[in-house]
Amino acid sequence: MQEDHGIEVERLGRVSLIRIARPTRKNALLGSSYEEITKQLKAADADEGVSCIVLTGAGDWFSSGNDLGNFGGFDPQKMQAMLAEKSRILIDFVDAFIDLKKPLVAAVNGPAIGIGVTILALADIVYASDTATFQVPFAALGQSPEACSSYFFPRIFGPALANELLLMGRKLTAGEGERAGFVAAVFPAPAFQKEVTKRVMQMASFPPGALAASKELVRGPLRELLRDVNRRETRVLAGRWASPEAKEAVAKFFGRARRARM
Amino acid sequence: MQEDHGIEVERLGRVSLIRIARPTRKNALLGSSYEEITKQLKAADADEGVSCIVLTGAGDWFSSGNDLGNFGGFDPQKMQAMLAEKSRILIDFVDAFIDLKKPLVAAVNGPAIGIGVTILALADIVYASDTATFQVPFAALGQSPEACSSYFFPRIFGPALANELLLMGRKLTAGEGERAGFVAAVFPAPAFQKEVTKRVMQMASFPPGALAASKELVRGPLRELLRDVNRRETRVLAGRWASPEAKEAVAKFFGRARRARM
Amino acid sequence: MQEDHGIEVERLGRVSLIRIARPTRKNALLGSSYEEITKQLKAADADEGVSCIVLTGAGDWFSSGNDLGNFGGFDPQKMQAMLAEKSRILIDFVDAFIDLKKPLVAAVNGPAIGIGVTILALADIVYASDTATFQVPFAALGQSPEACSSYFFPRIFGPALANELLLMGRKLTAGEGERAGFVAAVFPAPAFQKEVTKRVMQMASFPPGALAASKELVRGPLRELLRDVNRRETRVLAGRWASPEAKEAVAKFFGRARRARM
Repeated sequence: MQEDHGIEVERLGRVSLIRIARPTRKNALLGSSYEEITKQLKAADADEGVSCIVLTGAGDWFSSGNDLGNFGGFDPQKMQAMLAEKSRILIDFVDAFIDLKKPLVAAVNGPAIGIGVTILALADIVYASDTATFQVPFAALGQSPEACSSYFFPRIFGPALANELLLMGRKLTAGEGERAGFVAAVFPAPAFQKEVTKRVMQMASFPPGALAASKELVRGPLRELLRDVNRRETRVLAGRWASPEAKEAVAKFFGRARRARM
Repeated sequence: MQEDHGIEVERLGRVSLIRIARPTRKNALLGSSYEEITKQLKAADADEGVSCIVLTGAGDWFSSGNDLGNFGGFDPQKMQAMLAEKSRILIDFVDAFIDLKKPLVAAVNGPAIGIGVTILALADIVYASDTATFQVPFAALGQSPEACSSYFFPRIFGPALANELLLMGRKLTAGEGERAGFVAAVFPAPAFQKEVTKRVMQMASFPPGALAASKELVRGPLRELLRDVNRRETRVLAGRWASPEAKEAVAKFFGRARRARM
Repeated sequence: MQEDHGIEVERLGRVSLIRIARPTRKNALLGSSYEEITKQLKAADADEGVSCIVLTGAGDWFSSGNDLGNFGGFDPQKMQAMLAEKSRILIDFVDAFIDLKKPLVAAVNGPAIGIGVTILALADIVYASDTATFQVPFAALGQSPEACSSYFFPRIFGPALANELLLMGRKLTAGEGERAGFVAAVFPAPAFQKEVTKRVMQMASFPPGALAASKELVRGPLRELLRDVNRRETRVLAGRWASPEAKEAVAKFFGRARRARM
């Protein structure tokens, strides 16, 4: 039986709300979750009744990132086909964020890990609950940055902090994310949904042509570059997936996780 | 009778001081104000006795931005000519900031709105009084970013906060502007003029060739790009001025303002 | 007798530690110090037993920057040859930082001045002791920015603060450097070495291919640009060295320093 992709979509007036909802897996993303988000972003962007889009998580987590179960059971015979397929899914997913014409608000309701963090730099506005944290433990797991984080992180956090995140896997609090300019504002968890909804509903009441014009002036000149970065990052990451040192690091992680559960 | 442009110029040693002085209109800018600032920036830059330039406001405000009275009474017959004229004035004004060879210090003595904020990203150093605030309510008024803010704001504030400012019109305090790296330092209002003057007079005593060399290394490689951004932004903004949704949003604003005065 | 270059190198597991050690001169850099650091960076980058590199200072200072004694006794006859030689040394030094394939951690154990500050923007991660300060008094001394600081400073600090540093020579505390995103984290002086060593040793235990892949994604696309910036900055700086106003400013500095010692 195929696992459910766990992506829910809701409409609030002129706002399209996309929610990651796999609470038993801390909203980790399956291959099918990536594909569903890609599809829903494109649908909302094409819908004339939608002025802006919100991405959030169900429950306590925003997203724990790529479901590392995605890495299990690689059949060496099918390795090349599998890598090509995973690369295509990732490239399409990140392109969907790059290509959006309408403002995207990320409402980070709790902890975010890996691609749950990197993708936020492609949102236009990021709000965080005070329970949110941000961690990208790529190097420890033998992985490398994706979702244009190798471009955006040094430019948002400054090189020193960006590389501490990417290379050392330091975990940031919501407040640290705000001070670094990664997050526009932090709200206490109990008020989070209300505060974000209020702001998003107001923005959705503004002339849609003005919202799109502003977004296009900011994003338009970067699009070609970001699409190139997306492809370069994914190529490097596929090389990592295939590397013995990354397989070993992920296996070690699963070993630790299994021992922690015993 | 033509309204006065409200721009005053003063010389303090090797410093040229340009002051926006229309206090009864919160230092809003008329078409003639833009043109006078353009002229005075060029004059100061060409004057061998000047080492650096200061832009500030008279009274409690820095500038409330574009005088929305500029939008009144558009004769539909003359619309195209009017848009072309306004676009030319804006392009020349922003180019004058882009092209400066000498350091420009913005001394933000109080609240700033719209182009009173966006133009600050083209200054070299920005000081703010603790009474200063920063707001760019473009989307609410059906407008779009100008003065290279679509380029600089995401790079200075980070995309998340930049887009919250540009799309949602959030108002920043002076302290928030400093934490975001938009403002170099904040001083209490009573000491503001003294603190800024002290720093500017000291800088003006440094070797002028060194000041110009440093500015040129930072600004020179960006000039062509910024001039392109200026033209692209102005083209989009002229499209906004001509759009029904923007006219309606401005009319609504005037309606609210009129009711607020009654 | 030739003065010692004052650069020490140590190996800790997979970490290569380069230490500036001229404590009687506050770790100021001689021509030979630049050349030794260049050589040691290249050696560490080529050594398969090394995963990452640390640059730090011995004693209370990180580095007081270029040894201004370097400017003494210019023989006008040999001026051109001297400028060419100094330019070559500086270009090679900065290129060595630009070209590194392995992560470089700067451990700023105390005050940094001039090139002791600018070079930090080319490190991947910067940690600072709470005794660290950052000052680049270029304009006051008739000098101009080097080590790609004209590129990185406006992008890290924001233009307003970057230019206040470069033009006015404002001194930043460690905490201000952290808030500006120039420094990843600040530790109290007594714990500084222990805290940095712990983090660096952990990073050095991560898969080296992942560290190099992450660094390459971030740095690779900038390398050509940064090498151009390095050459442009050095050309401008050599012009400054040869200028009467810079010679006069340095002489004035030495006069003040001499009077301060009497």
